[in-house]
Amino acid sequence: MTALYLDDLHVGLRATTGTYRMEEQEIKTFASHYDPQAFHLDEAAAQASIFRGLAASGWHTAAVTMRLIATSGIPFASGTVGLGGELEWPRPTRPGDTLHVDCEVIGIIPSRSKPNQGIVKVRNTTLNQNGEPVQIFTAKILSFKRPA
Amino acid sequence: MTALYLDDLHVGLRATTGTYRMEEQEIKTFASHYDPQAFHLDEAAAQASIFRGLAASGWHTAAVTMRLIATSGIPFASGTVGLGGELEWPRPTRPGDTLHVDCEVIGIIPSRSKPNQGIVKVRNTTLNQNGEPVQIFTAKILSFKRPA
Repeated sequence: MTALYLDDLHVGLRATTGTYRMEEQEIKTFASHYDPQAFHLDEAAAQASIFRGLAASGWHTAAVTMRLIATSGIPFASGTVGLGGELEWPRPTRPGDTLHVDCEVIGIIPSRSKPNQGIVKVRNTTLNQNGEPVQIFTAKILSFKRPA
Repeated sequence: MTALYLDDLHVGLRATTGTYRMEEQEIKTFASHYDPQAFHLDEAAAQASIFRGLAASGWHTAAVTMRLIATSGIPFASGTVGLGGELEWPRPTRPGDTLHVDCEVIGIIPSRSKPNQGIVKVRNTTLNQNGEPVQIFTAKILSFKRPA
């Protein structure tokens, strides 16, 4: 897809990203720096936890989701500039999982004060190799009209 | 603080974490892997972008927030197990910013089906050295009662 401006977008527009394999070593490296909790770092501790086995940090799943979106999601002309959104982790990401993201525009809210911009709501569903969602992020993306 | 079970928590409970300095090199390293967009990687491109200067990926701010919460936030007895939440990035994190997180329990929802557990809503406000919020994450945390 070529770069898309606000004028080019419509509710229902979809993209499916490439894939990313979650390696056990990367899960532990990410967690040791950013989410140092035993169930993300140690197999035995993870087995005894609510996760019943090693699980990636949700923030690692989120970071990988961003990589997939930025490299092969909806190609917003000014980049994917997120203002925030609603995040859900319905199940953990496991070592060896291969993730991809289904992206869908679910709303477009024109700015009242700035006629050249708007907020695009995009539902980004991150799925594992079994088609099970591991993350749903309904993002608010800042988007701009094509320059005159 | 000692480890806290669901029974120990109440609305209004607060914690303030330690601090974390966002180094320019780490901002670029994180972005090159997880959010490879020019405004997170290159000073000149960032100056020309909506950010008007190099900005950390919001997911990097989120990951650092998790580190601060996991190491010095509210000490949930079963760990900080997030089910999701509402995320806002009101302003970017800049190279050299020193972040900390103010955590506050704003709601406790007992499970109807599982009497030993509940969901704790925690507002985690990540602030820079000027006291300006760079992220607000209203998290849903799974929490358990003290074992009988």
